[in-house]
Amino acid sequence: MKSNLARLAPKADQDTVRRHNLSLVLRAVHDEGETTRAGVAARVGLTRAAVSSLVEQLMEGGFLTESGKTFSGQAGRPGTVLKPARTGAAGVGVEINVDYVTVCVVDLAGTDRVRLTEHLDNRGAEPAEVLARAARIASHALDSARQQELRPAGVTLALPGLVAGGTVRQAPNLGWNGVPADALFARALAECPDTPALPVSSENEANLAALAELWFGPGEARTFLYLSGEIGVGGALVLDGELLRGAHGFAGEIGHVPVDPAGPACRCGARGCLEQYAGQSALLRGAGIDEDAGAAGVAELERRARAGDERVLAALGTAGLMLGRVLAGAVNLVDPEAVVLGGVYRALAPWLAPPAEAELATRVVSGLWPRDSGRLHASSLAGDAARGAAALVVEAVLDDPAGWAEG
Amino acid sequence: MKSNLARLAPKADQDTVRRHNLSLVLRAVHDEGETTRAGVAARVGLTRAAVSSLVEQLMEGGFLTESGKTFSGQAGRPGTVLKPARTGAAGVGVEINVDYVTVCVVDLAGTDRVRLTEHLDNRGAEPAEVLARAARIASHALDSARQQELRPAGVTLALPGLVAGGTVRQAPNLGWNGVPADALFARALAECPDTPALPVSSENEANLAALAELWFGPGEARTFLYLSGEIGVGGALVLDGELLRGAHGFAGEIGHVPVDPAGPACRCGARGCLEQYAGQSALLRGAGIDEDAGAAGVAELERRARAGDERVLAALGTAGLMLGRVLAGAVNLVDPEAVVLGGVYRALAPWLAPPAEAELATRVVSGLWPRDSGRLHASSLAGDAARGAAALVVEAVLDDPAGWAEG
Repeated sequence: MKSNLARLAPKADQDTVRRHNLSLVLRAVHDEGETTRAGVAARVGLTRAAVSSLVEQLMEGGFLTESGKTFSGQAGRPGTVLKPARTGAAGVGVEINVDYVTVCVVDLAGTDRVRLTEHLDNRGAEPAEVLARAARIASHALDSARQQELRPAGVTLALPGLVAGGTVRQAPNLGWNGVPADALFARALAECPDTPALPVSSENEANLAALAELWFGPGEARTFLYLSGEIGVGGALVLDGELLRGAHGFAGEIGHVPVDPAGPACRCGARGCLEQYAGQSALLRGAGIDEDAGAAGVAELERRARAGDERVLAALGTAGLMLGRVLAGAVNLVDPEAVVLGGVYRALAPWLAPPAEAELATRVVSGLWPRDSGRLHASSLAGDAARGAAALVVEAVLDDPAGWAEG
Repeated sequence: MKSNLARLAPKADQDTVRRHNLSLVLRAVHDEGETTRAGVAARVGLTRAAVSSLVEQLMEGGFLTESGKTFSGQAGRPGTVLKPARTGAAGVGVEINVDYVTVCVVDLAGTDRVRLTEHLDNRGAEPAEVLARAARIASHALDSARQQELRPAGVTLALPGLVAGGTVRQAPNLGWNGVPADALFARALAECPDTPALPVSSENEANLAALAELWFGPGEARTFLYLSGEIGVGGALVLDGELLRGAHGFAGEIGHVPVDPAGPACRCGARGCLEQYAGQSALLRGAGIDEDAGAAGVAELERRARAGDERVLAALGTAGLMLGRVLAGAVNLVDPEAVVLGGVYRALAPWLAPPAEAELATRVVSGLWPRDSGRLHASSLAGDAARGAAALVVEAVLDDPAGWAEG
């Protein structure tokens, strides 16, 4: 903030200020969903004239549309309603997980406009082949987007592992190590017929699901810990509305917090990690269901839990206890407003949450985590890595619409 | 950032910009230690004329001094050297711990100008009495500050417990619960003869020690986890140069991360917390030293470790292992650049760090924490809660020198 303000002094940077203000106005409309020029002016603190000029430029660039008339409720003439455009700039998210690929295209308003999911087993294949399959699915989604007059600004890959600088350092459940995912995906996409070249970036899937929950979920929390139960147990920390990436981009790896140092060996090389007690495979195994049964196995687990199957209830009880123990340590360390259970934990929360809450009530040192506080809860359906990935691209457009229009 | 830039538009806020720029210039001189007007202009991106006018105002307000001549090495006339004033605005820190009180006065340059420590047992006494003792010690320090022509802007209390909104929610090792520390201290200070009324705030001691390490220590890390070994085990998270306070101000409580859920009962009400394995009392007990021996006991522990006493080495080895186990979980969650061992751990690091590093090398899932990486290290002598508390007051002055001068 400080350096930007200081740099207002030289005239050369008027351009920077205008670009910045374009972003301010576009974000104001985006955040409100619909509003008037007067509403924007009140929100961002610019003059009405300045806002009108900026809105004009954003409409010409295809970022905003106006429609209808509204009475502002204040003195002056009625304003027309401004909305983010339903055509033009969009973002593409591609979630590559162990047993599925989901592609999602989101428009400027954050609406999910295209969604394609294919269930397939990505464990046996080479990384380049998995990324090529994902690119083919993405090219179909891009075709649908084009028919809706959407122009994607880029692609974000959501991957279940440690991701930084476009490379997957390790994704143990995919069996990937040191995979240059961005480059491989971009190359494969370029080979798909009639598909535009797009910038590609990648990010950990739990991080993106947490952002989707932040941006699209019903919750009020701006500081929360997000758990993503999949084959692995992913996690993400959102602090005051910002994702914590950490020094190398690897923050949030709660699946490898030790529960019992002498416990079973984990794919990460250590022993007794949370994943060995509360990961999807451990849950299925504990419940006597084939641990490779994937989504069908989880559905069966939920069905048996509803039916009161004692073995299943015991397995969920143990997993919930271990989750609570690890969460208590994380809550003592970070003091979040909420803990959100995503992925397969969303459906299993009715059985996992009570034992986890009991541990939290005992172990959170501030005493501010009583049972039934509602601060440990299932994620909404919005907490989806593919949507978060697509929305991350849209965020970049909202940050600098003029830059994207020029690019 | 966004709202501030937008608010530049109305003329009414020129005042805000000037106040902001005064802070920018004062900070530039503070951060450099000494510099010229041209150096400030280059650093903050304002014109030389604007900087000269702001410097003038800061010198009139007693925030900056100039001395000597220097050749800037560039075209133009030589500039005089600007430094933060050694008189005028200052901050007072008061650390109240289980067996000592330390008061510290820091000037605008961050230099420790007055330091008073009294060793006393604060466990038996009422909170109001402990705070009154601390106020009397502070009033002596304020007297010394006045003789050095320092004018303290406020007091920050550093307390070993959960602190928020001026109240100590709990400080188990002092036996405090729900103590309105700010109000009690301010009242006691007002009763001391010849002592000015000052605004009082309070903060967790580990948080302040971590800030002191950030601001005054030799380390480069901007994202680190700080452990404060005292009677309790405190902790703090500094993320990109900012302290993480959490939703209620209670972040950093790593002492209550569970090590063994069936372990010994902890003062917090749970069982098997890290504090029960690696707190000062546990260390002394494990080494066969009176656990109430305080600083003398820790010195004895260190002496015996140096002498190769096997029982002591075993106790330190176990504590280091438990520390490493808990730290591995925290590192997986937060991905810091470094972990800093402060408090009594500073002196004991030669024995605690190797077993802790072995655990980190095994358990940090990114594989980025090999042994001998140097990323787990002892704090510098700068990592001191009283100094951090005093410097927090100075930070507020640096943020808005004009506001303080008016107030």
